[in-house]
Amino acid sequence: MNTFGELFRLTTFGESHGPGVGGVIDGMSPGVEVDLDFIQHELDRRRPGQSALTTARKEGDKVEILSGVFEGKTTGCPIGFLVRNENQHSNDYDNLRNLFRPSHADFTYFKKYGLRDHRGGGRTSARETIARVVGGAFAKLALRRLGISITAYTSQVGHIALPGTYADLDLSLVENNPVRCPDEKVAAEMAKLIAEVKAEGDTIGGIISCVVKGCPPGLGEPVFGKLHARLGAAMLSINAVKGFEYGAGFAGVTQRGSEQNDVFVRRSDGSIGTLTNRSGGIQGGISNGEDIYFRVAFKPVATLLREQQTVDIAGNAVSVKARGRHDPCVLPRAVPIVEAMTSMVLLDSYMFYSRYKC
Amino acid sequence: MNTFGELFRLTTFGESHGPGVGGVIDGMSPGVEVDLDFIQHELDRRRPGQSALTTARKEGDKVEILSGVFEGKTTGCPIGFLVRNENQHSNDYDNLRNLFRPSHADFTYFKKYGLRDHRGGGRTSARETIARVVGGAFAKLALRRLGISITAYTSQVGHIALPGTYADLDLSLVENNPVRCPDEKVAAEMAKLIAEVKAEGDTIGGIISCVVKGCPPGLGEPVFGKLHARLGAAMLSINAVKGFEYGAGFAGVTQRGSEQNDVFVRRSDGSIGTLTNRSGGIQGGISNGEDIYFRVAFKPVATLLREQQTVDIAGNAVSVKARGRHDPCVLPRAVPIVEAMTSMVLLDSYMFYSRYKC
Amino acid sequence: MNTFGELFRLTTFGESHGPGVGGVIDGMSPGVEVDLDFIQHELDRRRPGQSALTTARKEGDKVEILSGVFEGKTTGCPIGFLVRNENQHSNDYDNLRNLFRPSHADFTYFKKYGLRDHRGGGRTSARETIARVVGGAFAKLALRRLGISITAYTSQVGHIALPGTYADLDLSLVENNPVRCPDEKVAAEMAKLIAEVKAEGDTIGGIISCVVKGCPPGLGEPVFGKLHARLGAAMLSINAVKGFEYGAGFAGVTQRGSEQNDVFVRRSDGSIGTLTNRSGGIQGGISNGEDIYFRVAFKPVATLLREQQTVDIAGNAVSVKARGRHDPCVLPRAVPIVEAMTSMVLLDSYMFYSRYKC
Amino acid sequence: MNTFGELFRLTTFGESHGPGVGGVIDGMSPGVEVDLDFIQHELDRRRPGQSALTTARKEGDKVEILSGVFEGKTTGCPIGFLVRNENQHSNDYDNLRNLFRPSHADFTYFKKYGLRDHRGGGRTSARETIARVVGGAFAKLALRRLGISITAYTSQVGHIALPGTYADLDLSLVENNPVRCPDEKVAAEMAKLIAEVKAEGDTIGGIISCVVKGCPPGLGEPVFGKLHARLGAAMLSINAVKGFEYGAGFAGVTQRGSEQNDVFVRRSDGSIGTLTNRSGGIQGGISNGEDIYFRVAFKPVATLLREQQTVDIAGNAVSVKARGRHDPCVLPRAVPIVEAMTSMVLLDSYMFYSRYKC
Repeated sequence: MNTFGELFRLTTFGESHGPGVGGVIDGMSPGVEVDLDFIQHELDRRRPGQSALTTARKEGDKVEILSGVFEGKTTGCPIGFLVRNENQHSNDYDNLRNLFRPSHADFTYFKKYGLRDHRGGGRTSARETIARVVGGAFAKLALRRLGISITAYTSQVGHIALPGTYADLDLSLVENNPVRCPDEKVAAEMAKLIAEVKAEGDTIGGIISCVVKGCPPGLGEPVFGKLHARLGAAMLSINAVKGFEYGAGFAGVTQRGSEQNDVFVRRSDGSIGTLTNRSGGIQGGISNGEDIYFRVAFKPVATLLREQQTVDIAGNAVSVKARGRHDPCVLPRAVPIVEAMTSMVLLDSYMFYSRYKC
Repeated sequence: MNTFGELFRLTTFGESHGPGVGGVIDGMSPGVEVDLDFIQHELDRRRPGQSALTTARKEGDKVEILSGVFEGKTTGCPIGFLVRNENQHSNDYDNLRNLFRPSHADFTYFKKYGLRDHRGGGRTSARETIARVVGGAFAKLALRRLGISITAYTSQVGHIALPGTYADLDLSLVENNPVRCPDEKVAAEMAKLIAEVKAEGDTIGGIISCVVKGCPPGLGEPVFGKLHARLGAAMLSINAVKGFEYGAGFAGVTQRGSEQNDVFVRRSDGSIGTLTNRSGGIQGGISNGEDIYFRVAFKPVATLLREQQTVDIAGNAVSVKARGRHDPCVLPRAVPIVEAMTSMVLLDSYMFYSRYKC
Repeated sequence: MNTFGELFRLTTFGESHGPGVGGVIDGMSPGVEVDLDFIQHELDRRRPGQSALTTARKEGDKVEILSGVFEGKTTGCPIGFLVRNENQHSNDYDNLRNLFRPSHADFTYFKKYGLRDHRGGGRTSARETIARVVGGAFAKLALRRLGISITAYTSQVGHIALPGTYADLDLSLVENNPVRCPDEKVAAEMAKLIAEVKAEGDTIGGIISCVVKGCPPGLGEPVFGKLHARLGAAMLSINAVKGFEYGAGFAGVTQRGSEQNDVFVRRSDGSIGTLTNRSGGIQGGISNGEDIYFRVAFKPVATLLREQQTVDIAGNAVSVKARGRHDPCVLPRAVPIVEAMTSMVLLDSYMFYSRYKC
Repeated sequence: MNTFGELFRLTTFGESHGPGVGGVIDGMSPGVEVDLDFIQHELDRRRPGQSALTTARKEGDKVEILSGVFEGKTTGCPIGFLVRNENQHSNDYDNLRNLFRPSHADFTYFKKYGLRDHRGGGRTSARETIARVVGGAFAKLALRRLGISITAYTSQVGHIALPGTYADLDLSLVENNPVRCPDEKVAAEMAKLIAEVKAEGDTIGGIISCVVKGCPPGLGEPVFGKLHARLGAAMLSINAVKGFEYGAGFAGVTQRGSEQNDVFVRRSDGSIGTLTNRSGGIQGGISNGEDIYFRVAFKPVATLLREQQTVDIAGNAVSVKARGRHDPCVLPRAVPIVEAMTSMVLLDSYMFYSRYKC
């Protein structure tokens, strides 16, 4: 299942060490100006080698648009795109051909398909997310016209967590540091931890938070296509994600209803809104016009630059140590991916919402 | 979007105060013996009025199978089913016609559809989940033949949480108490808390854990239909769910890769498995043959038997206090719903997995 | 696959000799007044026993709406509905339990599912189309508000065919005779032929034509969801249909491009249209604002009231002769089914078309 | 809607005068040997410039596989592919920018999307079908292992039609002449007619027939995914197709049931089959193991090398005459496209059929 979405649909392809990674966007709103610099900028946010915190691999990741754009505007026809792979060191992976790396998908792909491309993780490589970022960039261009904005940021790395809520933060500062944490001081601590972990040949997990502003009430398709169910599925489809919560989330289970309920009030402009927003902007699976916010848990990367025990295809005990260039912490580079998936869910939901406008 | 699944599909309908609730199961494996007692038993686990912990409403909830079964076996044709509503007190809801209850879906449904059935929450009522339980019961019948079993249980109510992991528990004890917590002592504490909360006209949230045993390696459809993404979407589509995590989940973000990775070993029977199971039975979005486990966060029920502030459709401040019979805590009755949704995801994934057997 | 449509979706269930036939309509526009008399009237047009031309079976076919309607209006929530089976003579089919009727689906269902409900054809019975007519009736209610009307009629029975095109006919006369042919004289000839065929215990095929007026330009989703491809799939899913053509159709293959092309002109009201309409109202898979018209070929009913040779499950030669009450010609009763399927395709396409209105 | 299929899925993109045409195949069976020469050969059968009968445009149409193949075998991961456009004469189309060609999709695309790529028809160009042929070639590779073969051929051009049925023909002769008609004498007449039409700057339509051999009983998903409904939708999605019929088709409507029914018999090998095959290999929407056959009507190409009247975007009368290189008759080049679409429907249906093998 390499297609995401129903009305705005992204279909992706590509492995780490094949010719390239790309996809097809189907259902894009026609007549939208295509800001190629913006799209490339989004890709650059995801690219390796941005800082000392991420893998030192150099990947240009230049996107070529193959269709669906005419004289600078989307035509409503499918948008094919391709990012060529380059700078591959396939030999770095020769030792992995016949063994199953711990907590990777080597074993499960082999069991499911009967064979696998072992080079760089093949389809399970995070390079797959390039196509998500391109899809999300197009979705953002459409959402921008609707006044909807999406901002994700690193809110926790290991045990170092931002205190308070997103409302305490200045989200315009996210891009000011390589960790993509909008609090400079906390960001520095996170960076320090990542550097330590890296020095040990180890990896570390964390949490990305995401906030949507400007979403009108009405998005989401109960009972199975609830907006948060779609957002959850989108986030859980990203490599290394282990959990999703929105609004009061897991912490809210200790609360009483009287503590967690959001009271409705009439605002000064006459509109109806809630006094608090523990619901996270979604009630009954439909956006209520308040800010939408949610959190996504990422496990530590499975690839370690240290020796680990495992078995080969025949079941013989072997040890494995990654070669090559790998991220000690995926959080900083996953921020644009979280935003991309969120954008696609929202645009798709907006199109569902618009279908009754007849 | 009232259809769930791709190959095994459940489509549901029904409101709290309409004629009934039901659905259509499409894609059920043919030739499966239909154990009607089992199906009704699953419904009875969900039914209100089971104990002092749940709402005192009496709902018989007898299911009528309308098609797709011939001489006691499934035919492969769609299975229509219907549970009539009864014992409705629609007048209990007259006061809600023109106001928006806090943290309910009254406001969002009104905004999305322009009108709403205010009686008993209409489509947003938990009665909707009856259809899920019936769908799940059929899926369980098919999974049973494949040796796959699913057990959910209440692992936390408010701040009272089971210590340790599912492996420390005797899951055969889940049905021994009305809380559906397999540890008698903790169950008693949970029951006490629920009774206290109820006495205050308040409500409380909690966590349901779920364990799948006997699932073969190979289920799950990367990159967007990863098994945990499907499970997450299924859980998040259940009323009141605010979060989902599997394997090491949110807690695991503080771990290093070297702490969280699961090492592969050859077992005494020659098969390959993992020494630990922090992955939660899923790697790269595909089941690996180990136990699958995950946790689902439920918020406290929004309906309170005490006065709350809110506004009416015109935006005027009003106060509302629920009449009728409501659950102080949904966890005990949500256990079979979690199992039902899990069953449908697994059977659907199994059918995807089988498509290549050609 | 018992779900039809993408945004306006009908899911159906039910066999001839089970408790009933019904379905779920998902995605119905909210706020539409539900004219129950109209819906029942559509069902009555499909009902057996309307005239001497059709089967003498008496089926009340009263529809019960189970959800999705509140105070006379659609709510946007799924509409469950049920038509109980009655007046069944299951014993009429005992002789069919272990044999395969010629040109029926007995053999293929047995091969596909390993078992079958032999009573009245089970799921393959034309009673299945009841659910289509209900779905279509709701779609018609929504299309009516958009100014789109659909009229089907019997244009050929055996070798007796209406001359000319739909434009030569007064389509308001369709319901004036039991054949549903808008030309009284030709209708009488058709009725005479059907009576002859019936007297011989035989059956006869024919063609239903359908015309859509008031469809705006823009409906249809190239390249795979072309409007005529959706219409064709819809028609071919009806029992006994063997062919579909639109516009100039099969006959047009002998024409030159210069004969078949439709020239664009500016109309007196300033709008752009075509001088002729050999395209059938669809160009490049998208409606162009002209009348849409197409033709559907129905084979003669397979059930004969005369002796036929066949084999039983073991392969032994046996002879079979239908008991019970059967149609010598399905055309008259299939007219509302063709309209229903057309309505659902158009409303679904309209919703797709509306998704960009944002 | 640029995705075709459910389990075996092809998503396509590309316009005539953009960088290229391509697609993504998702759900391909893993472990299939990829015969690149065969895939390119299929493309070559579709390519312009094969003979004097087709357009003189030179298009190399070399396919590049971008993913999903490892060491010569499919991996089960999505297969991206790209065919670069070349040899474009975009200037040939400058005169079309602001007018609507008769019986083309210029008007409808403009109305639907608000803008259009006028060069070479943009997305509506038959170059789009390149991606279908690649998808079909992969499907054929999988079907070959299952013993299923598909052969299409030109059975009518204008009024020149092959007599008899497919059983009277030697289908191994299809590729022996540029018309792709397996009867040399009729093929010569067809070629003569096409040459005459071409000389007049005109175009001509025709019929392609298709035969499937080796299909086991059981493929097809009633009631809406009947095998012939899927085949019909597939054919009707091809450019210029106006009709579809299978088995006895439209001609069969004049028959009595006693003439058209296929009698079951036990064959010498003990299996059950039909004595005749007027059903076209499909009964009740499910393959019955006999040969599947159907016919597809193609209209004459709309592009004429002669003057035609039309209007421009403002509604002013203008005349248009195509420049460039165009086919006088699409039939010969459409034969591989019909086969490709058929292959994809069959493989998809086979995968559905296999899902119960558990």
